[in-house]
Amino acid sequence: MQAIAVRRGEDHPTIIEKPRPDPGEGEALVRTLRVGIDGTDHEVISGSHGGYPQGADHLVLGHEAVGVVEEPGDTDHDVGDIVVPTVRRPPGESNKYFERGQPDMAPDGEYFECGIIGTHGFMSEYFTAPGKYLIEVPESLAELGFLIEPISISEKAFEHAYASRSAFEWDPESAMVLGNGSLGLLTLAMAIHTEPFDRTYCLGRRDRPDPTIDIIETLGATYVDSRETPVDEVPAAHEGMDFIYEATGYPPHAFQTIDALAPNGVGALLGVPDPWEFEIDGGALHEEFVLHNKALIGSVNSNIDHFDAAVDTLDALPDWLCDDLVTGVYGLSELHRAFEDGDDVIKTAIEF
Amino acid sequence: MQAIAVRRGEDHPTIIEKPRPDPGEGEALVRTLRVGIDGTDHEVISGSHGGYPQGADHLVLGHEAVGVVEEPGDTDHDVGDIVVPTVRRPPGESNKYFERGQPDMAPDGEYFECGIIGTHGFMSEYFTAPGKYLIEVPESLAELGFLIEPISISEKAFEHAYASRSAFEWDPESAMVLGNGSLGLLTLAMAIHTEPFDRTYCLGRRDRPDPTIDIIETLGATYVDSRETPVDEVPAAHEGMDFIYEATGYPPHAFQTIDALAPNGVGALLGVPDPWEFEIDGGALHEEFVLHNKALIGSVNSNIDHFDAAVDTLDALPDWLCDDLVTGVYGLSELHRAFEDGDDVIKTAIEF
Repeated sequence: MQAIAVRRGEDHPTIIEKPRPDPGEGEALVRTLRVGIDGTDHEVISGSHGGYPQGADHLVLGHEAVGVVEEPGDTDHDVGDIVVPTVRRPPGESNKYFERGQPDMAPDGEYFECGIIGTHGFMSEYFTAPGKYLIEVPESLAELGFLIEPISISEKAFEHAYASRSAFEWDPESAMVLGNGSLGLLTLAMAIHTEPFDRTYCLGRRDRPDPTIDIIETLGATYVDSRETPVDEVPAAHEGMDFIYEATGYPPHAFQTIDALAPNGVGALLGVPDPWEFEIDGGALHEEFVLHNKALIGSVNSNIDHFDAAVDTLDALPDWLCDDLVTGVYGLSELHRAFEDGDDVIKTAIEF
Repeated sequence: MQAIAVRRGEDHPTIIEKPRPDPGEGEALVRTLRVGIDGTDHEVISGSHGGYPQGADHLVLGHEAVGVVEEPGDTDHDVGDIVVPTVRRPPGESNKYFERGQPDMAPDGEYFECGIIGTHGFMSEYFTAPGKYLIEVPESLAELGFLIEPISISEKAFEHAYASRSAFEWDPESAMVLGNGSLGLLTLAMAIHTEPFDRTYCLGRRDRPDPTIDIIETLGATYVDSRETPVDEVPAAHEGMDFIYEATGYPPHAFQTIDALAPNGVGALLGVPDPWEFEIDGGALHEEFVLHNKALIGSVNSNIDHFDAAVDTLDALPDWLCDDLVTGVYGLSELHRAFEDGDDVIKTAIEF
């Protein structure tokens, strides 16, 4: 079968031939329908994040997949079920995080991530997965099911952020998403359609006309241009935010978020930047953190409960949004286009 | 009656004469027994924190009090009840934070704090307070009741920190308190006697012999000298911490905490520093925050539930601890000694 992989020593995706995998005990064979591409894939390809399976000369890419069960084996699934795989797998031996159903809380070294670190991803005509790591989704979501994994990431971030505010009566009204990439736009849509916010904002650094600004405004949110309004000036220009979701990976934003929050607000950090030293007014930020009961939470990956919630969320999002968000679905013959970046590209997927 | 106040334009406490207050509707008259002194009092005296009641030429100090009800008025209290007052009061009109019983979550301008900002404190022979802001405590705690307010501060910090970890199965084992002042030592004792930690640490910058190191080690915790082991090197020297409580007000600690936490750990920030610019590796800290699901929460003040919990906590702490912690209880004639600082001073109180 054909697969899309990055080879050791290379920094671009390549189509390779691999044997079709045989499902082991407790595993199903899944025929891949589509696999989404995100910033993590680009980081894996460039070598700045992730790592190859032990002894392998390549890593099959892809962690945002939707497929159809071809051979259910001894799993609870049936032939023809539409399924989305979760991303983390035990690194050999299982551990308490997997046994609890919370592999998203496992630290470094206690997990592999399909298509990212330690084990192959889903960008191949077929893949196998333990039945318990396959989420069944309605047939109506077969085409867009590759959006369930990124939505699940934000389901977790919302859940952890709200938990941090659960010791008191919190009545959030305003939310801002930092970043107008596909994850930022999906999360903005979630904040509007499935979360409790009255007023929403999305930060970017683009000139009009721009398709992401169009989506932001059609959703009913306010576009904030970070070149005019730095994150820590957002309260003066607009209002303090009860909730901030950082999806830029730009580390000054992580710290400016403290000032941009309203009293009792919470910021969820999702970006994974490289080291970068810079100056902050640590005294003022520390004081602001304390005197206004603010919170920051870091959030990575997601577990099965978040995938299940993401299925309902995707179903609740307006059709036009996904149409506008998914700017390209490409076959293997147009591989390079699927990985291209540009202001007119929001979200792409590979179709098998 | 006599009261201890700071006068506008001065930077030291003075004994003044004031009329004994008359309790209004819903208020009780309380005869003051003892009032503790903490870092906030020193900040108020120096003018770096807090503010005078409108139109007043002085501020009566003191927010850590215990007293006995002298005139219960129309409150639910009885003559002779031992009571501890909460600290926040509505600034004129009430607001939703007070109505919810969560004035600790009110932002700037929506509260006064007795003895700190906007309204007089408890360092006088008598004070009045609405009955609902007076916590009844057992007679056995009459002498040490002034420790209930600082313990309530940590009850809130623990509650908010745990809430931030409530979206997953968290099994904290290690805790570190940054700061060996009286609040740090009380919190360390709480971490050992009433919280779920197996291993505890306390950070200071003192040479032995030192009475705070003696307390740390008698409690069974490990003393960490920050001159030898900076906060962000604690995981290498000891272990990553599931919980960190920052009570130093030293802003680099707020950010070093991110590195000092174990995966899935939470840091509670309590210090209130002045502005101070310095450099951080914001990229590395941002990445660490995200990839290990860490959390930071700021926490200030406390509400009635935290005071109630603090009564039980104080009752559960060993007698020797409070004996060693309270290094001086002084009458008005020794006022200056009560406000003196030094390596042999841990916690002092004024006795009326």
